[in-house]
Amino acid sequence: MKKLINDPADVIGEALRGMAIAHPELRIDHANRIVYRGEAPVAGKVGLISGGGSGHEPLHGGFVGAGMLDAACAGEVFTSPVPDQMLEATKNVDSGAGVLHIVKNYTGDVMNFEMAAELAAAEGITVESVIVDDDVAVQDSTYTAGRRGVGATVLVEKIAGAAAEQGRSLAEVADVARRVNAASRSMGVALTSCTVPAVGHPTFDLPETEIEVGIGIHGEPGRQRVPIQPARAVAELMAEPVLADLDFAGEDGVILFVNSMGATPLIELYVMYSEFAAILDKAGVRIARSLVGPYITSLDMAGCSVTVLKADDELLRLWDHPVNTPALRKGC
Amino acid sequence: MKKLINDPADVIGEALRGMAIAHPELRIDHANRIVYRGEAPVAGKVGLISGGGSGHEPLHGGFVGAGMLDAACAGEVFTSPVPDQMLEATKNVDSGAGVLHIVKNYTGDVMNFEMAAELAAAEGITVESVIVDDDVAVQDSTYTAGRRGVGATVLVEKIAGAAAEQGRSLAEVADVARRVNAASRSMGVALTSCTVPAVGHPTFDLPETEIEVGIGIHGEPGRQRVPIQPARAVAELMAEPVLADLDFAGEDGVILFVNSMGATPLIELYVMYSEFAAILDKAGVRIARSLVGPYITSLDMAGCSVTVLKADDELLRLWDHPVNTPALRKGC
Repeated sequence: MKKLINDPADVIGEALRGMAIAHPELRIDHANRIVYRGEAPVAGKVGLISGGGSGHEPLHGGFVGAGMLDAACAGEVFTSPVPDQMLEATKNVDSGAGVLHIVKNYTGDVMNFEMAAELAAAEGITVESVIVDDDVAVQDSTYTAGRRGVGATVLVEKIAGAAAEQGRSLAEVADVARRVNAASRSMGVALTSCTVPAVGHPTFDLPETEIEVGIGIHGEPGRQRVPIQPARAVAELMAEPVLADLDFAGEDGVILFVNSMGATPLIELYVMYSEFAAILDKAGVRIARSLVGPYITSLDMAGCSVTVLKADDELLRLWDHPVNTPALRKGC
Repeated sequence: MKKLINDPADVIGEALRGMAIAHPELRIDHANRIVYRGEAPVAGKVGLISGGGSGHEPLHGGFVGAGMLDAACAGEVFTSPVPDQMLEATKNVDSGAGVLHIVKNYTGDVMNFEMAAELAAAEGITVESVIVDDDVAVQDSTYTAGRRGVGATVLVEKIAGAAAEQGRSLAEVADVARRVNAASRSMGVALTSCTVPAVGHPTFDLPETEIEVGIGIHGEPGRQRVPIQPARAVAELMAEPVLADLDFAGEDGVILFVNSMGATPLIELYVMYSEFAAILDKAGVRIARSLVGPYITSLDMAGCSVTVLKADDELLRLWDHPVNTPALRKGC
C-alpha cells in the first residue's frame, strides 16, 4: 500500500488537524471529530448536519459553511460516526429552529442518526431526518437495505442548505431535501478498487481488462463486470438504468453531476460529461446546471458516477444560491 | 491502460466539448483549442493568457474567468500548444491595454510563447511575458533549461489576475506576476507514474516500495528514489530543499499550497498539509493563507506537491480578491 499517511489509525485525526489550519473559518472539535461552520449556531436558522464514514472527501466536512452544512461528523474510514457525535453536533447547531439530519442510506448511519435524533428529542430539540437513497445500481447491498445513498447527497446538502439559509422552517427545509432525493438518480462505475488505509490491500480484485458497473462508494458490488470499453459505451451503460428509472424530460431541466471516485483525472471526467450530455440531449432532457469534479469519492478508486436531478424552477434557484464552503463555492 | 476515454487522439477535443456544455459562461474555440472568459476582451483590462500541454487539469482552462485568466490554450497531452493558438488568443483578449503571457518554464512552451509574442507585436499588440520556474527539485530537466514551472503557476495566475482586474497597467501586472514567481518555491513527490493516453503504459516504473522525490509534472526524473515512508518523513524530504532555497520567515506570512498530482485522496492531502504546517511552524514561518486540492496535476499520478509563497500585504490582498472560474472561486 502506497499512501501519504503516518499510522493508519491516525489518518482521520490528522486530516482534521490539517483542515483546521487550512480553513480557519471552520471550527473543529477534534475530540468528537466534528467540523462546524464557524458561526454555528446561526440565530433563527435551521441547523443542517450530516456525516458518515470518512474516505469520501470532500463529503461531508468540505461542505460545511454558509449556504450548506452547519456541521459534519466524521467516522473512521467507511464506518459510521456514533450517536454521541451526532447528538453533540445537533445540540451545537440548534438555534431553536430545529435541526435536519441528512443521512446516506447505509444501515449503520441510519441506525446511529435515528438514535441521535431520539436523544436530541429527549433534550427538547426538534429533529427531522432525510434519508438519501439515489443509487439505482442495486436493491439492497453489503451495508444497505434498499438503495444506497451516493451523489444526490451533495445536491441535497447544497439545496437544503440554501433553503435553510433563506430562513425557511424545519418542515420546509426537510421537504426540499426529500424532493431533491426523490428527483435524483445515480449510477457509478469503478476502474480500480480503493484501498482502506487500515486494511492495506485493495478492497476487491478487478482484472486489468474489466470495469465494474454499479459500484458502491465503499467498493460494494455493482451489477456486472464488463470488459473495459470506450467512454461512450461506459456512459451508455451508466445512463440507461438512470433514465429508465425516472422520466427526466420536461420541467425546467436537470442538474447533471459527473463525479470522480477519486483517482480519475478531470480531463476524463469532462469526456464522460460530454457523453452524458449527448445521451440526455438524445433523450430530450435539457441540462439546466452542471457539476463536474471529485465531490463524493471512494478514497483512491478510479472511476466515476453520474447523478441526474430533475429540477424545477425553485430547486434551480436554491442551487444558484450563494454557498461558501471549502469544496463548493458559488455566487461570487 | 484503464481510462474513461474514447480514441486517445480525441481526448482533448472531447474534454473541451464537455467543458463548453458544463460551463456556458466560458466561450470555447474548438478549432483552435482555446478556452475564453465569456466577456473577453474586457474593456480597459490587461488580458491574461496562459496555456501548455494538457494533462494538468484544472490548469489552465479551469482557471479562466473573472479575476484570473482571459484565455487558456490547450496543447496535446504534455505537449506545448503552437504559436498560432497563442497568437489567436492574444488578439482576442487584447482590449488595447496589452496582454500578459504566463509561461511555465518548459522549452517548447517558452519557444512557442516567444514566437507568438513576436507575431503579436508585429500586429501592434503589446505583450509582456513572465516565466514561471519555481521547482527547486532539479536544475535543467527532460524538457527544461533551468528550473521547471509547477505549483507557483496557479498562484501567479490568481494574483496577477487580480491585479489586472483592478485595472493595473501591463507593466504593473507583469511586475506582480514576476514577484510571485520570485517568492515561490515548490517540490513534488510521486507514488506512482502517470499514463499518457496515446502511449498506453506508465511513463516510468516505480517499484511498489519506493517513491520519487522531486518528480516533475510530466514524470520527469526527480532527485532521488527512497523507500515509502510515513507522511511526516516525506513532508520533511519535500520541505527541506524548499526552506533552504529562500528565507520565508518574517514579512506577512506565506501562502501554503498543497497540491494533489491527480490520484491522491483529499484526506491524504490534509494529512500532508498538517505535516507541512508543523514544519513551517517549527521554522518560524507563519501561514497566512492556504490552498489544498488538485490544481496542477499529472493525469492519474499519485503524489503531491508543496508550494510556498512568501507574501506581503499587497500579494495577500490580491490573493483575497474575488475570483470566479470553474476550478477556483473566492469572495462569495
